[in-house]
Amino acid sequence: MELESTSPEKAGYFARVWKLSKGLLEKLKAKVVELTLKTIKLAKDDPRRVVHSLKVGLALNLVSLLYYLRPLYDNFGVSAMGAVMTVVVVLEYSVGATLGKGLNRGFATLLGGALSVGAHHLACLSGERGEPIMLGFFIFLQAAASTFIRFFPKIKARYDYALLIFILTFSLISVSGFRDDEIIELARKRLSTILIGGSVCVIVSILICPVWAGQDLHNLIASNMAKLGNFLEGFGNEYFKTSKEGESEAEKSFLQQYTSVLASKSNEESLANFAKWEPGHGRFQFRHPWNQYLKIGTLTRQCAYRIDALNGYLNTEIQHTSSELSCKIEEVYREMSLECGKALKELALAVKTMSQPSSATNTHIENAKSAAKNLNYLLKSSVWEDTDFLAVVPVAAVASLLIDVVDFTENIADSVYELTSKANFKRIDVAHSPEKPQIRQPDNTKSPAMVDCPHVCITVNEPTPALSGNGNPSVTKAMGDLEL
Amino acid sequence: MELESTSPEKAGYFARVWKLSKGLLEKLKAKVVELTLKTIKLAKDDPRRVVHSLKVGLALNLVSLLYYLRPLYDNFGVSAMGAVMTVVVVLEYSVGATLGKGLNRGFATLLGGALSVGAHHLACLSGERGEPIMLGFFIFLQAAASTFIRFFPKIKARYDYALLIFILTFSLISVSGFRDDEIIELARKRLSTILIGGSVCVIVSILICPVWAGQDLHNLIASNMAKLGNFLEGFGNEYFKTSKEGESEAEKSFLQQYTSVLASKSNEESLANFAKWEPGHGRFQFRHPWNQYLKIGTLTRQCAYRIDALNGYLNTEIQHTSSELSCKIEEVYREMSLECGKALKELALAVKTMSQPSSATNTHIENAKSAAKNLNYLLKSSVWEDTDFLAVVPVAAVASLLIDVVDFTENIADSVYELTSKANFKRIDVAHSPEKPQIRQPDNTKSPAMVDCPHVCITVNEPTPALSGNGNPSVTKAMGDLEL
Repeated sequence: MELESTSPEKAGYFARVWKLSKGLLEKLKAKVVELTLKTIKLAKDDPRRVVHSLKVGLALNLVSLLYYLRPLYDNFGVSAMGAVMTVVVVLEYSVGATLGKGLNRGFATLLGGALSVGAHHLACLSGERGEPIMLGFFIFLQAAASTFIRFFPKIKARYDYALLIFILTFSLISVSGFRDDEIIELARKRLSTILIGGSVCVIVSILICPVWAGQDLHNLIASNMAKLGNFLEGFGNEYFKTSKEGESEAEKSFLQQYTSVLASKSNEESLANFAKWEPGHGRFQFRHPWNQYLKIGTLTRQCAYRIDALNGYLNTEIQHTSSELSCKIEEVYREMSLECGKALKELALAVKTMSQPSSATNTHIENAKSAAKNLNYLLKSSVWEDTDFLAVVPVAAVASLLIDVVDFTENIADSVYELTSKANFKRIDVAHSPEKPQIRQPDNTKSPAMVDCPHVCITVNEPTPALSGNGNPSVTKAMGDLEL
Repeated sequence: MELESTSPEKAGYFARVWKLSKGLLEKLKAKVVELTLKTIKLAKDDPRRVVHSLKVGLALNLVSLLYYLRPLYDNFGVSAMGAVMTVVVVLEYSVGATLGKGLNRGFATLLGGALSVGAHHLACLSGERGEPIMLGFFIFLQAAASTFIRFFPKIKARYDYALLIFILTFSLISVSGFRDDEIIELARKRLSTILIGGSVCVIVSILICPVWAGQDLHNLIASNMAKLGNFLEGFGNEYFKTSKEGESEAEKSFLQQYTSVLASKSNEESLANFAKWEPGHGRFQFRHPWNQYLKIGTLTRQCAYRIDALNGYLNTEIQHTSSELSCKIEEVYREMSLECGKALKELALAVKTMSQPSSATNTHIENAKSAAKNLNYLLKSSVWEDTDFLAVVPVAAVASLLIDVVDFTENIADSVYELTSKANFKRIDVAHSPEKPQIRQPDNTKSPAMVDCPHVCITVNEPTPALSGNGNPSVTKAMGDLEL
């Protein structure tokens, strides 16, 4: 009876287990698929990640040879482990980071080893009883002092790892010395295995598909400028489109690229930090002006803050409250953002190709500035008299932001010019632009390069042609005030 | 003769050397003084740095006892060095960072050790010739895979160190196993010394003046809000002061405090990351809603971007171009920034003291919102008819920014309320404010708490009293549009 009653129960139980495990299996399958897709994406986004992973495996195998090969093992013994450890912690993604960590580790071990040998001799003088007390005192002193030094911001940025290794080496060798009197031999072995491990790292890092932090910083700065340029080129269309027009998702994400610029500060700083450790490579000299890249990056980011504010006005419907008003300012807004966008993209291209910015850059900036001046005339003119002031507030805010953007574009151009002269970028179109810092031309003359520049085909119908291009000083002054 | 001729030469030489070395000595002295002052400032700014340095020294001495004391040494031998190494790398500034690193290191060693023992046994099966090849293959495989996994952003944020130690342990033990067959003993010793070192770190970190990352994050978020509050409270006076008025440096730096908020993102994120490792402490539970702090931090930072833009208008003279205009909007601007500033400071105080925000917070926000509405009326009114539009642009930009700031203040208040309910902050003034999310009161009723709130003593003469306080729906709609 009992058997009969349990049989269907059992069957039901198994069915449930089967269902449950099938469900779990399907979930697991979905997870695995998701993970695989993520992994493939991670690898595709930057294939150098895969190469780096293989490099770590290779370097570890190279130092393991110290252990596998009898003659090498006889020389180093167990302390060959120091080489394996060094490879694991020193081999970083970029050459600069690897060199920085390797040099930090090497010098800190040298210094820590030397001082600990000294400390050991001093401690020996105080007899068997006093030795551990003296050793403890020395270790306490150097650990506390070195740890405190790590709080200095400048030292933390470049030598934090060195101080860590200094504390480590000093403590290890001093403490070991208490039981083992061959302390110099110990320090020598530790230093030489670290040198071997570090050399393997540096060789693998430089010889096999090297990742240069400097090159990455260079590309990052250029692409950040290009992203802002893309937004500004698209801003006019986006701002003045009637709300009925559809918009593809791709277009939207294209405009939103700039958001990555807002948070790129720490990335830029660490890349610059690594780049300073790198030797000359490709077209970068040893003392390439990396700090100038940080300067351009900071200006680009400040410009991106303004662009973020502009983006806020894209998502409101306010621009359509007064279509008459929109018409009047549409052209001048379009020109300002378009010309700034083009200038930024020219500058990005110049940095990317390591050449002097083309003369078109200058023309675009001049166009943007003269559009800002037109905005000025427009604001002074009488078109506003019957306008509802409330509708004007966001429009005026956009005007103010665009004027800021023009200003920042000019500043970015200036610091790109500074970079090109510091880093001796090659010039391309010398014929069209004989003067070196092209950016500082007189305000009201059209640059001659404008005529044969293919980028200036978008001629904007200036709203108040009678006023444009004259040099009324009071207007120029007010314009100066407007550059907030 | 030669002696005679060299004598004055020699004297001159010595005089020069003396002068030079005196100069150098003075320079050195100045450097030493400067460095000392810097050190004292670093220690004074946060005395916990000194305590942390001493803690590192103490912890190192504690683990050295393993070496000094004969019975302990007999048990561990040379591998006691693992404990020293663990202390140096694991003992971090905050409890959370120490616990995070310690747990990462412990689990990674356990896993790496277990897998390497397995790999060793597998490799042994393939004979003496095949063993190093198999070992090399395993090491290559795990190093490459683990290194690639480190590129996943989420894993990098929390488990980067664990993967590093996993690679390290696996490689060390597998390679050692080639020469030393007591591989399990090796793995056991390594694990137990790491456990000892880690325990010393955790004990020292928690028992001696603990630095809780969670507490730091809590204070950082509160002080960031207070900094914005300070700026906004001072903004009105600063914006409308005539250029003749002097300004003390102290006042200026007080206003500029907000700039540190702009770049606090990475700091907040790492503190939250550490805080998640921390056990309950003081009035923080184990699962305190740390992510909510990040949310408040993000809103605060976005508000700080607007404040940075507002700050740009402080340094221009534009506000004085039309004093008539200034007069008209002065009061409403003053009220908006002052009330927002007070609300932010109330919120900061509430977070700081872990209590519900006082009812005054709500009143301040309502006041700021009604001031924004007054601005709205003002913009719609006829006061602008004869105004030079050019002078209005920056004023309108400030209006738009201030409206944004009011909006952000409300959002910050909302997420602070969310935090207080998630974290069960205590209530203080229940009598005055029976409803829980006080922020959502109807727009046009004055809160009863306003009467007995000491903070609302600054009554602003509303420029168009006939209009204020009525609930014209079309105006309310336009106001909604203005909250950009």
